[in-house]
Amino acid sequence: MSISKTEREQGKVFAPKFDANGLLTAVVVNAANREVLMVAFMDAEALDKTLDSGLAHFHSRSRGKLWLKGETSGNVLRVGKIMVDCDQDALVLECSPAGPTCHTGATRCFYRKLEDGVLQPVNT
Amino acid sequence: MSISKTEREQGKVFAPKFDANGLLTAVVVNAANREVLMVAFMDAEALDKTLDSGLAHFHSRSRGKLWLKGETSGNVLRVGKIMVDCDQDALVLECSPAGPTCHTGATRCFYRKLEDGVLQPVNT
Repeated sequence: MSISKTEREQGKVFAPKFDANGLLTAVVVNAANREVLMVAFMDAEALDKTLDSGLAHFHSRSRGKLWLKGETSGNVLRVGKIMVDCDQDALVLECSPAGPTCHTGATRCFYRKLEDGVLQPVNT
Repeated sequence: MSISKTEREQGKVFAPKFDANGLLTAVVVNAANREVLMVAFMDAEALDKTLDSGLAHFHSRSRGKLWLKGETSGNVLRVGKIMVDCDQDALVLECSPAGPTCHTGATRCFYRKLEDGVLQPVNT
């Protein structure tokens, strides 16, 4: 959708801005405590499916296909509020996770911190 | 750096995984209240500058160059903790912002929520 910069930044029209690969960035936070659970990408299809179903869908860059988060594990992400950034190329999804979000079994994908050049596990 | 999947996901070695465009995703959260302030991208240079200076640097995709956040506005982001995700292609930067983070003057770039297909301003 072609809209002006002012409309894009200040308006009420949702005009998601996909990048050259047809993707925007989606940051998933836990609605309960605001922790960042994961970061993934959405194409138009994944965004539509998310809005239709209320469950977070993404576009897998490695597999090149639509991906319902939790499709196999059951650990779906029920989407509450969706926040949109100034230029509409990134979303924050406030979600209620049905289980651990990370495929490793961790509560969240961000289970390590960088300290003096080395990764250290943190409580998750 | 070539490391195994297990090392990448469970190890202590920081081996940032840049995408085909040489970028990884950086999510900036306010260390004070965990609100997501902005989302941007880092190439190796931006990451190095961030680690060296303690101030968030990014790679501007539109301008194709290194960008010290706050370079002109003075609203720099002092980086506290850096969290790294499972496959090391995304970072969460817990920051102390020197001022409003968004170029629009808003505290954070995520100042609107999507509701019934329309964007509504939220308190920032």
